[in-house]
Amino acid sequence: MQFSAQQVAGMLNGTIEGNPDVSVSKLSKIEEGVPGSISFLANPAYTQYIYGTQASLVIVNRDFVATAPISATLIRVESAAAAFAKLLEMYNQVKLNKTGISKHAYIADSAKVGESIYAGEFAVISDNARIGNNVKIYPQVYVGDNVVIGDNTTLFAGVKVYSETVIGSNCIIHSGTVIGSDGFRFEPQNEEGSRKVPQIGNVVIEDDVEIGANCAIDRATLGSTILRKGVKFDNLVHIAHNVEIGENSYLAACNVVAGSTRIGKNCMFSGQVGIVGHLQIADNTIITAQSGISKSINKPNEVYMGSPAFDANKYRKAYIHFRNLDALVQRVDKLEKKQ
Amino acid sequence: MQFSAQQVAGMLNGTIEGNPDVSVSKLSKIEEGVPGSISFLANPAYTQYIYGTQASLVIVNRDFVATAPISATLIRVESAAAAFAKLLEMYNQVKLNKTGISKHAYIADSAKVGESIYAGEFAVISDNARIGNNVKIYPQVYVGDNVVIGDNTTLFAGVKVYSETVIGSNCIIHSGTVIGSDGFRFEPQNEEGSRKVPQIGNVVIEDDVEIGANCAIDRATLGSTILRKGVKFDNLVHIAHNVEIGENSYLAACNVVAGSTRIGKNCMFSGQVGIVGHLQIADNTIITAQSGISKSINKPNEVYMGSPAFDANKYRKAYIHFRNLDALVQRVDKLEKKQ
Amino acid sequence: MQFSAQQVAGMLNGTIEGNPDVSVSKLSKIEEGVPGSISFLANPAYTQYIYGTQASLVIVNRDFVATAPISATLIRVESAAAAFAKLLEMYNQVKLNKTGISKHAYIADSAKVGESIYAGEFAVISDNARIGNNVKIYPQVYVGDNVVIGDNTTLFAGVKVYSETVIGSNCIIHSGTVIGSDGFRFEPQNEEGSRKVPQIGNVVIEDDVEIGANCAIDRATLGSTILRKGVKFDNLVHIAHNVEIGENSYLAACNVVAGSTRIGKNCMFSGQVGIVGHLQIADNTIITAQSGISKSINKPNEVYMGSPAFDANKYRKAYIHFRNLDALVQRVDKLEKKQ
Repeated sequence: MQFSAQQVAGMLNGTIEGNPDVSVSKLSKIEEGVPGSISFLANPAYTQYIYGTQASLVIVNRDFVATAPISATLIRVESAAAAFAKLLEMYNQVKLNKTGISKHAYIADSAKVGESIYAGEFAVISDNARIGNNVKIYPQVYVGDNVVIGDNTTLFAGVKVYSETVIGSNCIIHSGTVIGSDGFRFEPQNEEGSRKVPQIGNVVIEDDVEIGANCAIDRATLGSTILRKGVKFDNLVHIAHNVEIGENSYLAACNVVAGSTRIGKNCMFSGQVGIVGHLQIADNTIITAQSGISKSINKPNEVYMGSPAFDANKYRKAYIHFRNLDALVQRVDKLEKKQ
Repeated sequence: MQFSAQQVAGMLNGTIEGNPDVSVSKLSKIEEGVPGSISFLANPAYTQYIYGTQASLVIVNRDFVATAPISATLIRVESAAAAFAKLLEMYNQVKLNKTGISKHAYIADSAKVGESIYAGEFAVISDNARIGNNVKIYPQVYVGDNVVIGDNTTLFAGVKVYSETVIGSNCIIHSGTVIGSDGFRFEPQNEEGSRKVPQIGNVVIEDDVEIGANCAIDRATLGSTILRKGVKFDNLVHIAHNVEIGENSYLAACNVVAGSTRIGKNCMFSGQVGIVGHLQIADNTIITAQSGISKSINKPNEVYMGSPAFDANKYRKAYIHFRNLDALVQRVDKLEKKQ
Repeated sequence: MQFSAQQVAGMLNGTIEGNPDVSVSKLSKIEEGVPGSISFLANPAYTQYIYGTQASLVIVNRDFVATAPISATLIRVESAAAAFAKLLEMYNQVKLNKTGISKHAYIADSAKVGESIYAGEFAVISDNARIGNNVKIYPQVYVGDNVVIGDNTTLFAGVKVYSETVIGSNCIIHSGTVIGSDGFRFEPQNEEGSRKVPQIGNVVIEDDVEIGANCAIDRATLGSTILRKGVKFDNLVHIAHNVEIGENSYLAACNVVAGSTRIGKNCMFSGQVGIVGHLQIADNTIITAQSGISKSINKPNEVYMGSPAFDANKYRKAYIHFRNLDALVQRVDKLEKKQ
């Protein structure tokens, strides 16, 4: 993608100041600008960088006043921040605008695919799968039997979707993520060891869900493991069988949610949080990094910390005392000696 | 799979009560029953749901007495729970009963494969690999050079098995899991940085092992990393080089076992447990979630908690005091003032 | 690979003692030697094993004096340890010496690949990718558009590299690892939920980097997520957008580094460490297992422990008091009663 200053000014409804003959092919931060890149200046704290930037084009606010010579060509717009956000969006759309079914993809005869889909090399779409319109299935993705995928959803390279999974519209699932693997459930049997409990439920992912790379989301034993509308996962998240994650809840990297736990709406869990099975977590719960939840949380809007976790403010206070335990012990020593 | 009430009754040795002309294609919980599904009632606590269930068929105990009209067709059997478990098993077997070698799979000329195997699209079976009978190799699986896989083992889509790995019979390995990657071992060398220690051992997995999705099990430096018979892993488990996991031990999600540690039989580790390298862990050890083991455990049948972990009961007691540290500090303040 | 005693002695500049007609095909530890394997004796603590080993060949130091009969053929060399290390290296090179482009690999017409590369079955090299000489791309690897990979780098089976990623020379990336997935960044928008911030930066990996299996390294929002020369990661490591890891820093399994954090040179982090976003970590910092870093570390060469972490020695002392909190509480009880 190569754009002239004219083209960019046209797209952003801006006016050119300086050499109109430059062209750009990438976006950069102003302090990291290189020739052939376009940057922007919105935050006054970065103004110093505009005088030395190597970027070929810089988007500035209409009222920006230079106090020294600038080698870059400027494009003046109403809001530099908004204009750059628009550019980012456009760049991203072009970058991800894959279409067409590779002749190296495998699509089962019984599968039904929508219009304008992309199916990359060595992707597999299995028996009776139903793929919506504008779905992007990158190379080496596996879509199992009877899987349903809604419109405009993207599965990046190497995603693995087991049979019977249902994925909504406008979802994004990153590489390496596995959806629909068996839940971890065994029953003690006899002296011969345990017996695997068949896992014949599925995973249901509603619309507008984004899942990071290398996550693992198990199917339900019976019924469904459910990610509600707008759920967002970072990388390497584990979701056990029969879990339900409420609308618009965010789970950061390496979260672990054990079996049958139900998490409310609009929750925010930091990295490496662990949650025991068969719990209920109220809406708007916030959990700090590395915390472990061992009991249901019934009151919404609370913040938890520790392992096992309790109220974050109380945890922080207790932790300060923990750091100073040596001094406390010495104080008790002294009290005992004085007796 | 579509079954009539007659067929189901025949399979389960049951008697039909109600409309014999219904047919079903899936299994459901009684409280989530939908038309075309079959459910069961065994636990009396769920009896209320049978009167409103949308399920087309419900399996009940021979002696069940209805106290209100039921729209579903009933199948009476000796034990509804056992009959439903049998159905689950049968359903699962049918669902997973893949066979045949896809013309899009790649099998090296020097590889030997057994009878009735399944090899899905874009699977790779490399030089001199030996694959047993009834093995299921799903699409996009990679089986490296000289790998040996026993009878009836299943590798789900996208499993990666490095060269020289040995996998036993009746194992199940879920998507995205990597077996045989290099151990993490480097030797400080000189000012040029570290030198990688070649990792030329392998991984040996005995019979009846199940491994979840996106796990990573490193090969030994020399010799073997070993998972003994009946070991079960949940998702995202990391096993370092030269580790040995004893028979029938269970590791929940996101466990980390560092290099050369040997874990005994029948251990149970909850999620996010970490174990330092070069330790011995006794048989029947239980470790609670998020705990970290930093010393060998010589006494079997104990429960550990904390990071670093110690006896779980003592930990819980200490943790209660930790939660109340603020009160303790105030008590000491008071004692000091009184002097 | 089959080698006669003569060949091995030649390669190692050693002298044969015993039956010169044996040949070997694998390497073993002396205590686990099997017929057809070659082992070595360097550590005197293992001398006992040489008299009973089943290994066919054993490398010993020039001055080794046997005190009982040995059935294995010996090869005497200046340094048995160095000779065996050389053998390991050679064995590994042969094992990994894959070459040739499979006719089942897909290489886009616009991609440029160097000399002597290996591209395995169902590997994908996308538009405008530039692959150096002697690069090994194992089966089912995905290399996205515009990716650059330096000479002698190895990507094991199933690695996924998103578009625009830059990987240096002499790197090793293990199976299942994902490089360049989107950062986890959303902006609160309105009642309709959050808006995804386009992630259009990339990942830059410098020379001599090794990354374990099933890691996930996110691309930058703008600019680059950077792993400097000599960085080593164990398995299942998560690196968020815009992070920078300094030269020769080592991250053990299941580390999590949140967005925009900059880590110095020569750091060593044990397993399951978590680091909050937007921090600076000084050179040579050591962090113990399961610790959580919540504040920048400005002083180099320090050791941290705990969650949140502080000085490791102080942590250990406080933790001893924590273990004994019950006794401390009883002492305070007693003091109160005596008043």
